[in-house]
Amino acid sequence: MFDLYIANKNYSSWSLRPWVLMKVMEIPFNEHLMPFEGGFGASHDVYTRFSPSGLVPCLVDRESDLAVWDSLAIVEYLAEQHANVWPSDKTARAWARSATAEMHSGFGALRDECSMNCGVRVALNGLSANLKADVNRLDALWQQGIERFGGPFLAGEHFSAVDAFYVPVAFRVQTFKLPVSEKSQAYVERLLALPAMQAWYQAALEETWREPMHEAETLKNGTLEVDYRTS
Amino acid sequence: MFDLYIANKNYSSWSLRPWVLMKVMEIPFNEHLMPFEGGFGASHDVYTRFSPSGLVPCLVDRESDLAVWDSLAIVEYLAEQHANVWPSDKTARAWARSATAEMHSGFGALRDECSMNCGVRVALNGLSANLKADVNRLDALWQQGIERFGGPFLAGEHFSAVDAFYVPVAFRVQTFKLPVSEKSQAYVERLLALPAMQAWYQAALEETWREPMHEAETLKNGTLEVDYRTS
Repeated sequence: MFDLYIANKNYSSWSLRPWVLMKVMEIPFNEHLMPFEGGFGASHDVYTRFSPSGLVPCLVDRESDLAVWDSLAIVEYLAEQHANVWPSDKTARAWARSATAEMHSGFGALRDECSMNCGVRVALNGLSANLKADVNRLDALWQQGIERFGGPFLAGEHFSAVDAFYVPVAFRVQTFKLPVSEKSQAYVERLLALPAMQAWYQAALEETWREPMHEAETLKNGTLEVDYRTS
Repeated sequence: MFDLYIANKNYSSWSLRPWVLMKVMEIPFNEHLMPFEGGFGASHDVYTRFSPSGLVPCLVDRESDLAVWDSLAIVEYLAEQHANVWPSDKTARAWARSATAEMHSGFGALRDECSMNCGVRVALNGLSANLKADVNRLDALWQQGIERFGGPFLAGEHFSAVDAFYVPVAFRVQTFKLPVSEKSQAYVERLLALPAMQAWYQAALEETWREPMHEAETLKNGTLEVDYRTS
């Protein structure tokens, strides 16, 4: 049995990746939600109790007494044991891994200027040049994958790890109304409609924690339009 | 046969990862060195001719007519075809993948404040709090790997992909004299002594290109002590 350590569902885009993948793949796990406490520094000290890097997500495999402390390493660990984490076709798999790794290390402006905050809707005061470049690249990448491998998911018929890496972006597109093509918007809506994504979203709305740093980041280049959080 | 597209050996830490891995593993490839031209923007336009993301490194597999456009995706692509890219032991492999992914997405201060510039030596004006934290984490991680798996490499007896991801850091430690433990310093020297690293270093010293942005980054928090570049 696996233990998956994650942070706040409303904010933690990195936690969402393995969580949604494991839910869609029906891989059972115990969820441990450890909320961010007073910024990353304080959380880091708590997180080092179970995660060697002090970061979440972290997957603990109790049977092997093993911690896997990064979202992409978790994906590869699961892929060794479960079919369909990556596409079975070699070309689709290489494409999916490239697109996944690009998200893992890139899209800095998207990350920085459109912080994940599931429960709110924000009117941006325009898009910076860097954010425009990221959104354009994202849109091109999504369209390329869907066209090349036939959709409806990025690397073909089945939801795979590459989609799991882009589900947090679906929340960002929703929160900040990022301008993407019709084809990419349809992909965003497909992701948001997944039962696992609906479950994550509902839990995020019900969270009572508010982290001032995350809240400020969300509004640093925009105005709050709606806050759907219920508590 | 593979084609590997890389940028300047003196500067491009991301290019070095798959290059050194393929050399150590004796996987043959054609090298295409495409120097940075007038900053990243201009290079990006050239790089999109062969790399979908406009970034290097990019591995092209001619037989499969396939581009793999990220250093970590390249590693996984090669691991499907060649033994020993990752450690054969399951625990060592999970650890190695976690440490590799941590470098792929993290160590922001190390990257930002100690830009790779193989040919020079710089006296830093002290270490920022973020840089100290990164160096401490790096040092702890290296020691942990070497102790746990017995060394002399990070995940055991053989050089593997996790070492390939930390070879650029060996150049950074050398350039900026970063303070690490004796055990980590010995690991740095082990990496720098690899024939593949020596070959990369010599080629870096002989490059004639100087990229103003990279040169300025290198000295933004320090003073130039020596420039070993020969042309």
